[in-house]
Amino acid sequence: MIKVGIVGYGTIGKRVADAVLLQDDMELVGITANTHNYKIKAAKKKNIPVFPIEELHHLLDKIDVVVDCTPKGIGASNKILYEDMGIKAVFQGGEKPDIGASFVAQCNYAEVACSKFLRVVSCNTTGLCRTLKSLDDNYYIDKVHATMIRRAADPWDIYHGPINALVPHLVVPSHHGPDVRTVIPHLEIFTTSISVPTTLMHMHSIAVDLHIAPTVEEVISLFKNTTRVRVVHNDDGIRSTAEIMEYAKDLGRERGDMPEVCVWSDTIGVWGNKLMYIQAIHQESDVVPENIDAIRALSNLGPAHESIRKTNISMNID
Amino acid sequence: MIKVGIVGYGTIGKRVADAVLLQDDMELVGITANTHNYKIKAAKKKNIPVFPIEELHHLLDKIDVVVDCTPKGIGASNKILYEDMGIKAVFQGGEKPDIGASFVAQCNYAEVACSKFLRVVSCNTTGLCRTLKSLDDNYYIDKVHATMIRRAADPWDIYHGPINALVPHLVVPSHHGPDVRTVIPHLEIFTTSISVPTTLMHMHSIAVDLHIAPTVEEVISLFKNTTRVRVVHNDDGIRSTAEIMEYAKDLGRERGDMPEVCVWSDTIGVWGNKLMYIQAIHQESDVVPENIDAIRALSNLGPAHESIRKTNISMNID
Amino acid sequence: MIKVGIVGYGTIGKRVADAVLLQDDMELVGITANTHNYKIKAAKKKNIPVFPIEELHHLLDKIDVVVDCTPKGIGASNKILYEDMGIKAVFQGGEKPDIGASFVAQCNYAEVACSKFLRVVSCNTTGLCRTLKSLDDNYYIDKVHATMIRRAADPWDIYHGPINALVPHLVVPSHHGPDVRTVIPHLEIFTTSISVPTTLMHMHSIAVDLHIAPTVEEVISLFKNTTRVRVVHNDDGIRSTAEIMEYAKDLGRERGDMPEVCVWSDTIGVWGNKLMYIQAIHQESDVVPENIDAIRALSNLGPAHESIRKTNISMNID
Amino acid sequence: MIKVGIVGYGTIGKRVADAVLLQDDMELVGITANTHNYKIKAAKKKNIPVFPIEELHHLLDKIDVVVDCTPKGIGASNKILYEDMGIKAVFQGGEKPDIGASFVAQCNYAEVACSKFLRVVSCNTTGLCRTLKSLDDNYYIDKVHATMIRRAADPWDIYHGPINALVPHLVVPSHHGPDVRTVIPHLEIFTTSISVPTTLMHMHSIAVDLHIAPTVEEVISLFKNTTRVRVVHNDDGIRSTAEIMEYAKDLGRERGDMPEVCVWSDTIGVWGNKLMYIQAIHQESDVVPENIDAIRALSNLGPAHESIRKTNISMNID
Repeated sequence: MIKVGIVGYGTIGKRVADAVLLQDDMELVGITANTHNYKIKAAKKKNIPVFPIEELHHLLDKIDVVVDCTPKGIGASNKILYEDMGIKAVFQGGEKPDIGASFVAQCNYAEVACSKFLRVVSCNTTGLCRTLKSLDDNYYIDKVHATMIRRAADPWDIYHGPINALVPHLVVPSHHGPDVRTVIPHLEIFTTSISVPTTLMHMHSIAVDLHIAPTVEEVISLFKNTTRVRVVHNDDGIRSTAEIMEYAKDLGRERGDMPEVCVWSDTIGVWGNKLMYIQAIHQESDVVPENIDAIRALSNLGPAHESIRKTNISMNID
Repeated sequence: MIKVGIVGYGTIGKRVADAVLLQDDMELVGITANTHNYKIKAAKKKNIPVFPIEELHHLLDKIDVVVDCTPKGIGASNKILYEDMGIKAVFQGGEKPDIGASFVAQCNYAEVACSKFLRVVSCNTTGLCRTLKSLDDNYYIDKVHATMIRRAADPWDIYHGPINALVPHLVVPSHHGPDVRTVIPHLEIFTTSISVPTTLMHMHSIAVDLHIAPTVEEVISLFKNTTRVRVVHNDDGIRSTAEIMEYAKDLGRERGDMPEVCVWSDTIGVWGNKLMYIQAIHQESDVVPENIDAIRALSNLGPAHESIRKTNISMNID
Repeated sequence: MIKVGIVGYGTIGKRVADAVLLQDDMELVGITANTHNYKIKAAKKKNIPVFPIEELHHLLDKIDVVVDCTPKGIGASNKILYEDMGIKAVFQGGEKPDIGASFVAQCNYAEVACSKFLRVVSCNTTGLCRTLKSLDDNYYIDKVHATMIRRAADPWDIYHGPINALVPHLVVPSHHGPDVRTVIPHLEIFTTSISVPTTLMHMHSIAVDLHIAPTVEEVISLFKNTTRVRVVHNDDGIRSTAEIMEYAKDLGRERGDMPEVCVWSDTIGVWGNKLMYIQAIHQESDVVPENIDAIRALSNLGPAHESIRKTNISMNID
Repeated sequence: MIKVGIVGYGTIGKRVADAVLLQDDMELVGITANTHNYKIKAAKKKNIPVFPIEELHHLLDKIDVVVDCTPKGIGASNKILYEDMGIKAVFQGGEKPDIGASFVAQCNYAEVACSKFLRVVSCNTTGLCRTLKSLDDNYYIDKVHATMIRRAADPWDIYHGPINALVPHLVVPSHHGPDVRTVIPHLEIFTTSISVPTTLMHMHSIAVDLHIAPTVEEVISLFKNTTRVRVVHNDDGIRSTAEIMEYAKDLGRERGDMPEVCVWSDTIGVWGNKLMYIQAIHQESDVVPENIDAIRALSNLGPAHESIRKTNISMNID
């Protein structure tokens, strides 16, 4: 049993905690809280041990791996402490790439398995890596151009806008392209990003120049056979991010989550060597199975496909 | 075992189906579908028998009670069929009041228990009845003025706006006041209603003139002891409908539902005989436990408090 | 000619500047800027003198009246400077009531005309005062209950949310009631307030207990004859705040502004002594004519109706 | 004087009417109305002659050119009437391409000048044509990939959603690419489109492969010198569509319109032969100057640059 502690109990932290509880090779020793709120209240109802942030040492004393889910930048300062105490750690994509090896389970589990520190890349980067790796392995990518249409706030977040505007990211290319290359280094990829007034999911409009031209049917079939990628269809009445989220609820998914990247079969088009498709990313949950696999990778448990399979089954993926 | 069939498998129908499955004195014989979509796909994954709408008779042949969750107005035409076949039926609040006795379990279960047809009133009316009945029983209501701030579309609904406007209901008073009186006939109540660009919950701003003036603490305590009413607090970080919905997910509620009416303790104020408070209504789920109780009321199972208790426990309410 | 300077050139400041330019008894000496942006760029295109905030003294040296349109709280610290230099000042409703006499032209112009400092009350308070004063003068108000449905951000503001939630003001009663009493002291009024995801206008749902019961037609007629109140109608296709804003653009109003409070005739209802109505407030502009009148009131120009008439004509109101 | 009539007085029709009134070589004979609403009310206040739709013949009798601004598809059936009466007509982009020669003034004024029927292409197509034509003329375009992030409803439209979802266009490529080719036939262009919950402007994320590689500064300079294209800057505080719309109001533009395509200088990037940029399109107004030029093109007035110059000056563009 890998003894796991979770530092930071927000959108990602609480989901990773729930997912750890579902693993038969992990034990959730506790989480930290630096304030009282409904999230902590709910954790206590689930009998999850809660350590006040002042008692972080007590938690760290008892664990093998820490999953640091603190807000952007705090993980970097926590790392010193983890290093001091000789604890392996998983960080999130908000941290800078040099905090640890960037990680997407289905892309580079084996290569990073001996690390002491892993960084589960951001929700958008994870989503890009899943479909692009699969395309690159099969058809050899020449170049990628992707536009990220970003949900401007999470569903619970009442503080951030815009309420009625489109906000382009005013640096080009956006950081997503370079971040993908921390996982798939040879990929030539250019990205831009625009924030829009929705809370539900991100959406990616992707154009890929390939060396080998597949048919639309071959791409659909490839994505159907790629783990943590779901092909969705207009024919099922799934026309938007709203219906994807509703379907996740109908499937009985915990918190209505959809950790799979969802690609619409209807948006896949091929013209010569150019492939276009649109995918949706559930920003709150797509990195959750990655965190679970990262815990195993740090613990030298494997191989990749075995960890992915265990995680998927426990979370009802596929 | 009461044999139950559900006609209409949308927002309410699918939730009532799940709730029926949780009851030890009911059997879900089947649902109807008049088209293929992701909801039906998910029902089949749950092994719920699906009857094409053309085979409605086969479903009706096998059941004691039908819960009609069809869109507004269709229930009325279905009623003829149910009457012909001698089947008791629960209708929803979109139907006209004369379709059956209007029903809110904690208000009038006993009075309507011998009916053949019940009408679970709308989500807003149900929410108003729960808190107003409790206030009236204890402090005797003189007059109510309520403004309903309505979510303009459900979370899955991508077709209805407005995206950026406030839309007053241009008939005064709105139908909600008269509808409350189908359940609590003596209540003097005036309501107006405004649609706003959100999908999460309705909100009610309520002012009540009372004959006996309570303290704020007494009102908080009363609501805490009223079934299917939840008192929420700024201190827990619950500041909006968004956090209520997030808390429901954190509590592990099916589909992230919150069937309880939520009253903010911080919004309760008393000046002389006037009481003011704000409550939030989860339009997708607050009538679901009412439908379950309505099935029992039609089946002459009771008493009210016993049915309410069974339903609450099964749905993890309180 | 009253020499006017404007300190703070945001949503209100830029509109007051434009309105001052329309008056034949005022001269706009200049505005202040503490940063470069498109607003300043546009001011320069209009040949409005721009004083860097460091040179505020140079502006103050040349003027009789300053209109302080700085963000909440800054006006209070500026006041010391204005007092030192013996300059009369108009402040905005974000400042505390003790900064100067609270002012709504059609309610209390004469009473405050000898002040050195005036405070134009907030957009919501101004809107409430306009219709309530008129009702009180004619039918004697016993009690008011109002719910303010507030736009959560201005149209240009991309930073504030919520994107998809209803946020009740968690203090009762809200400050609006007491603020109305700074203008109409004897009024018994209780208010609550809820922020919603729209940028266009505020909306007020108002219930008034009156001593003399008017008919609906009498109320419509009263509001039609009340300055800076506009009665709007479903019959004209005006069903929401969106169509009011569109109508203002169609009328050729500067910036598409609608400084009048808009009351829907269709929402006016009378039951016994209780009157209910719904009004919409253009938060960006309803206080602009008030600022112009406040400049005259400070300058002992009058009477009220003459100033109001001049301001209205210049701004194309009525 | 070209005698002009306008059939259909909605979002586009009312703007074209106002723009015709500004031309010294055109006379607005009248508009048609098929119902009463605030738009007609405002037209009457401006003394624009209004013809009930039943009296369309009386209007057509008196004019040289009709601008048909009716909803999608109605123009096609009106065309028969216009042909019968020998009247030249301008149609909008909602009509099928075969209704007349597709038109963007700065792209193909001369080629279509002898037509009897012109079709001003849609707001999105017009926006794409303006910047792409300029790039193609200077650097020779090899291939274009563009993602259109579409506002889901106009500001006045309270009926269409989504309120909180991203809705991909489920046909690839979207019709925008082929529509651009009705104006610039040789262009290789692939487009996708996603509707989002905003009312203000569309946004285009564009990637272009060029034969000649410019520098970022050269592209900025090119766009600054391209008519009806405006380069906007983060440095001026213009970070989103919201601030563009606010700036248009600050500039005193009629109805707060921004007929120019706005390109952020900050989003222009060049990597090898690939150019990326983001532009915003004011869907309500960018085709208005095109309609004015189309009237002149049909009337054999020219040349293009002279018509464009006159239209721009009258509408305060540039």
